[in-house]
Amino acid sequence: MGKSEQIAVGVIGTGGMGGMHAENLHTRVANARLAAVSDVDAERAGKIAEQYGSAAVFTDGAELIRDENVEAVVVASPDATHAPLVLECLKAEKPVLCEKPLADSAEAALEVVEAEAKLGRKLVQVGFMRRYDPQHVAVKEAVESGAVGAPVVFKGWHRNADLDPGIDSEWVVINATIHDIDSARWFIEEEIEEVYVRGMNTAPKFGEDVWDVQLIQFSTTGGRMGSIETNVVAGYGYEVGVEVVGESGVVRSAPPAGAVVRRDYAASQRIENGWLDRFHTAYVIEIQRWISSLQNGGPTGPDAWDGYASLVVADACIASLRSRSPQKVARLDVPALYGEGVEVAR
Amino acid sequence: MGKSEQIAVGVIGTGGMGGMHAENLHTRVANARLAAVSDVDAERAGKIAEQYGSAAVFTDGAELIRDENVEAVVVASPDATHAPLVLECLKAEKPVLCEKPLADSAEAALEVVEAEAKLGRKLVQVGFMRRYDPQHVAVKEAVESGAVGAPVVFKGWHRNADLDPGIDSEWVVINATIHDIDSARWFIEEEIEEVYVRGMNTAPKFGEDVWDVQLIQFSTTGGRMGSIETNVVAGYGYEVGVEVVGESGVVRSAPPAGAVVRRDYAASQRIENGWLDRFHTAYVIEIQRWISSLQNGGPTGPDAWDGYASLVVADACIASLRSRSPQKVARLDVPALYGEGVEVAR
Amino acid sequence: MGKSEQIAVGVIGTGGMGGMHAENLHTRVANARLAAVSDVDAERAGKIAEQYGSAAVFTDGAELIRDENVEAVVVASPDATHAPLVLECLKAEKPVLCEKPLADSAEAALEVVEAEAKLGRKLVQVGFMRRYDPQHVAVKEAVESGAVGAPVVFKGWHRNADLDPGIDSEWVVINATIHDIDSARWFIEEEIEEVYVRGMNTAPKFGEDVWDVQLIQFSTTGGRMGSIETNVVAGYGYEVGVEVVGESGVVRSAPPAGAVVRRDYAASQRIENGWLDRFHTAYVIEIQRWISSLQNGGPTGPDAWDGYASLVVADACIASLRSRSPQKVARLDVPALYGEGVEVAR
Amino acid sequence: MGKSEQIAVGVIGTGGMGGMHAENLHTRVANARLAAVSDVDAERAGKIAEQYGSAAVFTDGAELIRDENVEAVVVASPDATHAPLVLECLKAEKPVLCEKPLADSAEAALEVVEAEAKLGRKLVQVGFMRRYDPQHVAVKEAVESGAVGAPVVFKGWHRNADLDPGIDSEWVVINATIHDIDSARWFIEEEIEEVYVRGMNTAPKFGEDVWDVQLIQFSTTGGRMGSIETNVVAGYGYEVGVEVVGESGVVRSAPPAGAVVRRDYAASQRIENGWLDRFHTAYVIEIQRWISSLQNGGPTGPDAWDGYASLVVADACIASLRSRSPQKVARLDVPALYGEGVEVAR
Repeated sequence: MGKSEQIAVGVIGTGGMGGMHAENLHTRVANARLAAVSDVDAERAGKIAEQYGSAAVFTDGAELIRDENVEAVVVASPDATHAPLVLECLKAEKPVLCEKPLADSAEAALEVVEAEAKLGRKLVQVGFMRRYDPQHVAVKEAVESGAVGAPVVFKGWHRNADLDPGIDSEWVVINATIHDIDSARWFIEEEIEEVYVRGMNTAPKFGEDVWDVQLIQFSTTGGRMGSIETNVVAGYGYEVGVEVVGESGVVRSAPPAGAVVRRDYAASQRIENGWLDRFHTAYVIEIQRWISSLQNGGPTGPDAWDGYASLVVADACIASLRSRSPQKVARLDVPALYGEGVEVAR
Repeated sequence: MGKSEQIAVGVIGTGGMGGMHAENLHTRVANARLAAVSDVDAERAGKIAEQYGSAAVFTDGAELIRDENVEAVVVASPDATHAPLVLECLKAEKPVLCEKPLADSAEAALEVVEAEAKLGRKLVQVGFMRRYDPQHVAVKEAVESGAVGAPVVFKGWHRNADLDPGIDSEWVVINATIHDIDSARWFIEEEIEEVYVRGMNTAPKFGEDVWDVQLIQFSTTGGRMGSIETNVVAGYGYEVGVEVVGESGVVRSAPPAGAVVRRDYAASQRIENGWLDRFHTAYVIEIQRWISSLQNGGPTGPDAWDGYASLVVADACIASLRSRSPQKVARLDVPALYGEGVEVAR
Repeated sequence: MGKSEQIAVGVIGTGGMGGMHAENLHTRVANARLAAVSDVDAERAGKIAEQYGSAAVFTDGAELIRDENVEAVVVASPDATHAPLVLECLKAEKPVLCEKPLADSAEAALEVVEAEAKLGRKLVQVGFMRRYDPQHVAVKEAVESGAVGAPVVFKGWHRNADLDPGIDSEWVVINATIHDIDSARWFIEEEIEEVYVRGMNTAPKFGEDVWDVQLIQFSTTGGRMGSIETNVVAGYGYEVGVEVVGESGVVRSAPPAGAVVRRDYAASQRIENGWLDRFHTAYVIEIQRWISSLQNGGPTGPDAWDGYASLVVADACIASLRSRSPQKVARLDVPALYGEGVEVAR
Repeated sequence: MGKSEQIAVGVIGTGGMGGMHAENLHTRVANARLAAVSDVDAERAGKIAEQYGSAAVFTDGAELIRDENVEAVVVASPDATHAPLVLECLKAEKPVLCEKPLADSAEAALEVVEAEAKLGRKLVQVGFMRRYDPQHVAVKEAVESGAVGAPVVFKGWHRNADLDPGIDSEWVVINATIHDIDSARWFIEEEIEEVYVRGMNTAPKFGEDVWDVQLIQFSTTGGRMGSIETNVVAGYGYEVGVEVVGESGVVRSAPPAGAVVRRDYAASQRIENGWLDRFHTAYVIEIQRWISSLQNGGPTGPDAWDGYASLVVADACIASLRSRSPQKVARLDVPALYGEGVEVAR
């Protein structure tokens, strides 16, 4: 695509995530336009189409993908539709930014990996937007600068203020912890080899056997270690952070960065209430960079392999929470398209 | 202008500031395009034109303004050219975002105010970008929420890592402190009534009589108070912050918000090295909001009155640093177009 | 006095400050004992005597001073009694730790200085306990290490949560700002040469002409500068801090250091409610060091000269708040006993 | 013992820890005196005796304990001597503050527990000084206030800058992690039920099979969870902290609390270099409170049961690091003397 033309993007799914991507495409990205939207709820799609330009409206995502006016696709529909739609994009040879998880199972994600590997070029990017979050990037840069030596321990925490009933322990892994798994792989630059998940129910509304707080200890192929806390009813706000303990120092994502208010015998800083609030900038940068990469040869963000590998670790987490014992993560052969899988910078 | 059309913007001046505005218009603003650039240095202008779209190139700013393909103008040329170019925009009835200061003297700024008042509608916005900086906005919102009561004392600090020789004490006021004067007016929502400037030379390279560190104590029409430190060779980095002491609490802009690196017996966070680094987000939001306001009825940011009033205070500061005594700020009659001048929210 | 003997200390005044010193002497200082207490309120004195050892009880401070069983004296009675009691100690040649201010006027303090200078050895220490506060000491050490270059600007803030009615603007200077004046002299290591005090009434209960918030801009004999905020009804808690802007960096006292509590969409840290809470450690170290110094040749803390010089600056502040104009501070001849008055470490 | 008399304390072991306790007894505790010291190195003992009062010198700790002039004992000799010396104190019915660990094995600690239970009154306190550290106490108070709901997850980190060669993985558990085990029990107020220890060697000087970084995931009798990082060659400084995730919020120990120095494009705060530096205040308060408790009926700090229970968990940690699998902690019957073992405040 030419540098000064606007890329015509179709967004599939117009709920919270899809609506946000549509808004960002329309108002915060220079070289793209919202060309089409799709949703099983045509009315909702229509509203988004109207609000953010004069986009065409579809009720069938596959149809949107095949439309010749659509040059690139954002998939933000329900999890189970991700893999089929991404495969459709590969068939149509159109670049796709797919929200996480890449699929609702590791098996389904493997199909995507294999189809893309067969095609022989990368078209798929997975929406691990933390890799674009300035706070995460600052930690990554500090680690890569060598300022604290090689990583030894990764610590992640991931807290939602609250969630509606209807989720189970597996959902927490696949939908929430999946981000932290990607973070761990990205920061440690090794595959996770073993996981041990413990959990507790603190919100009876989910059902007593649902672990809404999960603590995972893991080790990697190189003997490094980590701990992840996923807490979907933390109660106090939304917060995500990482700490990397290196051989000679420690890097930690910044503490709350809002204005400091002193009143009532306390100094306080605001904590965000949800991911759209916390990761607004990350989502904007993610889509700006994605559009820019499409103008310059193809996507450079987290790829189908990252989407697949994170799901394989998620599977092991689920096996661990069911068996209540440490579980090994399946070893994977990386297709040549994806290099060594996890980049090893050291 | 229609909501989905792209506004054609011309940028006058293609140095650091103009180049940044051109880049932001091209890559981070959805509904605008860089249509023209102007610089006395045609080669520099040409490079920017090529880099950020296929903009027309001018060497005469007034010509760019009169060009019928240009719908809105950004003025980022040397200070002395600001007022004449803005007057040209008013004559052409085109909206203009003019870098601070609005003029190189209060008198020249008054001409702009009078011309705009005569025209009867606002076309001028002044580049006090701090009003769009998330950290400043957070302080403003906290103050306006009433969380700390009515403002009593404003404190501002404004530090450059270093500057090249060639500046004098007056330059520090007009080019640096002007931002803090606008901040003080914006946070206190009263006009500054008296200023007392003290200073010290810490950098002999400027000449011994140049005060590169200036400390200003001021009071306002309502008896409120403030202190501003402007420090153009702070040595350690670039930093700008504010603190508002209210009747029942205090709000302070966030401390450094980068990753925390622990090494060598210290925990440290990075400090920015310059204003483009520190205020990158503020400049992006400033121009996004400006473009958006042009699609919705006209500019809503700091106006010609703010540009003029800040220069009147700057004049008093200069009188104070020359006389080494407190100086009253001239009282001004606010044309009806500008309401009460400084908004009074309380 | 021998190293392992306990020094017999008499405390004059058994209100909040005297009671605290008595408690610290009894429970947190190894080589001293509370030998005597004095108060016009014999009952209050009796309770303190009983609570912290079997101290003798006096109703006349001078009598306590002359008692042969008393080896050293702490003066914590009302301001007007300070100078007479300290003079009595000098007459008895007993070391005395006198709460600030050293006297209720610069003139009265000068009598103490002259009496001590005539005696030819230092017996008087003034209770500027901030010099023992770990947070202040950390700033002082950082400045003295040269890490930020020579001091250019001092900033101090001093906020009480609230005070009872009955004070006036002069009281704020003499009783509150006096600490900050000593801080400024200690950090800048130059005498204050000019002060300009502005103020505002935010608490009508004091009377409308009383400035409960005062902002002072000052300059020193070496052309350095400073700003002090004294705020006796800050509303939100008790807080004291300093910032020293040096030629190549800045040192600031630590932000609130309590546990970080995340709840209700905010991360917060406790702020102290009063000076006994905030400066507990400073008072303990002050008296431990004082006792220790008495075993090793005599007091090493802030001396009569510091007590006097701070009152001379306070006088200029009062003149400034009355005249509403900048005021010069009287130049003083320093008796040889006090070296150069303010230590110059650079 | 009478309230105003000085308790005669004997200190066994005059290395770093014993020397510090001797110094604190001599200079920072009001109602105690250093009456005797003991060390196999008589010369070292003699120096300490001379430096901190005129204490008697012993080379045999048991002899010191039996000396009729010694009323209370501090044990700070090598680990293997702890249990025998504490048993000697119980025989002599003298109160003893014993450095951690209480014994070099859980079995040896059980002997102490049984002997004390038989005696029927508490004489033993174990030196888990973190319970007196203001930063830890602030976290404990916040948790107990209910501000964040019942504890769900405990996180602890414990980092030494460096250690000399000669330690092994077990040493790390028994000498370092033992503190964090006590912390976890104190904050969660439940016994630890299962531990899973992973580790890595980052310092070849210890031998390649020695895990100098250990990460422990644990769960408690009530299903709560935790993670402990022990890192004996962290490289960057000494740091200990805790975070308690509650059902509705999170409490975390304060970040570094030193002066903030801005220079060289960074804002930094000092990190301590060792435990004497970091926990100075905790050790002073520990011994002040211990002395005070002896005057008021007996020790109130961490008791023999805490010393024993922490060693039982340590044994499970060692079994885990040897087996590389999760290990259950032995269930214990608590003698009546120790109530419910771990206090349950909720």
